[in-house]
Amino acid sequence: MYTSETTVRVRYGETDQMGYAYYGCYAMYYEVARVESLRQLGLTYKSLEAQGIIMPVLENRSKYISPAYYDQLLRIVCEIREKPGIRIRFHYEIFNEDNKLIHIGETLLVFVDKQTSRPCMPPEAMKKVLEPFFK
Amino acid sequence: MYTSETTVRVRYGETDQMGYAYYGCYAMYYEVARVESLRQLGLTYKSLEAQGIIMPVLENRSKYISPAYYDQLLRIVCEIREKPGIRIRFHYEIFNEDNKLIHIGETLLVFVDKQTSRPCMPPEAMKKVLEPFFK
Amino acid sequence: MYTSETTVRVRYGETDQMGYAYYGCYAMYYEVARVESLRQLGLTYKSLEAQGIIMPVLENRSKYISPAYYDQLLRIVCEIREKPGIRIRFHYEIFNEDNKLIHIGETLLVFVDKQTSRPCMPPEAMKKVLEPFFK
Amino acid sequence: MYTSETTVRVRYGETDQMGYAYYGCYAMYYEVARVESLRQLGLTYKSLEAQGIIMPVLENRSKYISPAYYDQLLRIVCEIREKPGIRIRFHYEIFNEDNKLIHIGETLLVFVDKQTSRPCMPPEAMKKVLEPFFK
Repeated sequence: MYTSETTVRVRYGETDQMGYAYYGCYAMYYEVARVESLRQLGLTYKSLEAQGIIMPVLENRSKYISPAYYDQLLRIVCEIREKPGIRIRFHYEIFNEDNKLIHIGETLLVFVDKQTSRPCMPPEAMKKVLEPFFK
Repeated sequence: MYTSETTVRVRYGETDQMGYAYYGCYAMYYEVARVESLRQLGLTYKSLEAQGIIMPVLENRSKYISPAYYDQLLRIVCEIREKPGIRIRFHYEIFNEDNKLIHIGETLLVFVDKQTSRPCMPPEAMKKVLEPFFK
Repeated sequence: MYTSETTVRVRYGETDQMGYAYYGCYAMYYEVARVESLRQLGLTYKSLEAQGIIMPVLENRSKYISPAYYDQLLRIVCEIREKPGIRIRFHYEIFNEDNKLIHIGETLLVFVDKQTSRPCMPPEAMKKVLEPFFK
Repeated sequence: MYTSETTVRVRYGETDQMGYAYYGCYAMYYEVARVESLRQLGLTYKSLEAQGIIMPVLENRSKYISPAYYDQLLRIVCEIREKPGIRIRFHYEIFNEDNKLIHIGETLLVFVDKQTSRPCMPPEAMKKVLEPFFK
């Protein structure tokens, strides 16, 4: 299992008139979390795309336990629990500044070869870096 | 069961560099679909809030079958399949201009009394209007 | 001068905790207005991109006179006041449901040839359609 | 004059199919810059609102010199050039990772007393902290 942490601060434009971070913003928070998660391993999603691989999302699930509020610095624990194949699943737990778990999510993505538009395995560099976490 | 239909056109700002409607935009499409769904019954979410009831989201699930592209006029079929109590669940099926099913989603919301911050039943007006669909 | 009208309804996710449509959402409203403005002439921005021309924004200006609120159906009057050359300027006036002018904006865009990355003239089809408005 | 610096990383969901950070995202970047600018002085916009003062935007101007791309860490230099009265103007210069100036913007905001809905002077704490910069 590979675990990482990122923080995201709730922007004003992300709040809604209920005073909550809009429920649609979490997908973007997940994106930040998984991109930073990979970066902490020395991998960037940017370079992945430069290599001709894109990672569209197949599934997304979210549980909203408690609201997030404006300006809160949210801590996102992001986990890859199973060794990725053609697909990779990220799990997220979001904690507020009181260290309270306020949100749970998961996203399933697929590696796609841009040229053929077909699913493919992750690039060697990614496999190699992730391997030690799934022994 | 109550079924309704809405259309949403993919905005340029909603696309990402993959050329797809960003996966995080669907939550907003769902919002449009359920608001218009209620409006077609003569109910507005706006007036609900004016009556002191808010409807935060508890759960959200999305399946991305095929991408949506810029400027496509998406048709969203929105269903309430079970009679709402304190909670209400909306199901969405999104079709592209070729009438292909490209996306499935569902959202669970809860009625909350703004003053007490406690879950509550839907207002009488909503109950009355929805009743004929759940006999 | 070419004038057109479009409507945009303020989405919940576009409001902020002040209860206003977030100031950053107007750029997206402008985008909808100018795209629909061209569509009313039989032109689509989509087909423009398919022809290898993109239209990045060079300048944007906004005056926020009064707030827009959730669920309001805003009417956007969009004008092209001068004959477009390599650049095209759109003016926007936004009216709320009481027909009150609440917002003024303008955006300057440039036609760019995707292959050469250089500014270019609008395609013939667009020139032809716009010509009658600038005599 | 008061000058501060913040960084913002371009999110995937902020890009558009042109491959640029969408022109509508800069307003949110400005928001981050001015909020962090105040935080560096020990002031939070959050506490301002808690004191009953909101700061709606009156005017916004943007010049897009060069595009920002996905995953770039943008550096935003944010300046308050004149002593704020009822209104406060922020200037922004955005630099990419090559330290190239890619964007210029400015935003005019007004202090508003939430209860009376009338413009008001900034709170004493803010005045005091900003004073040394405008002698």
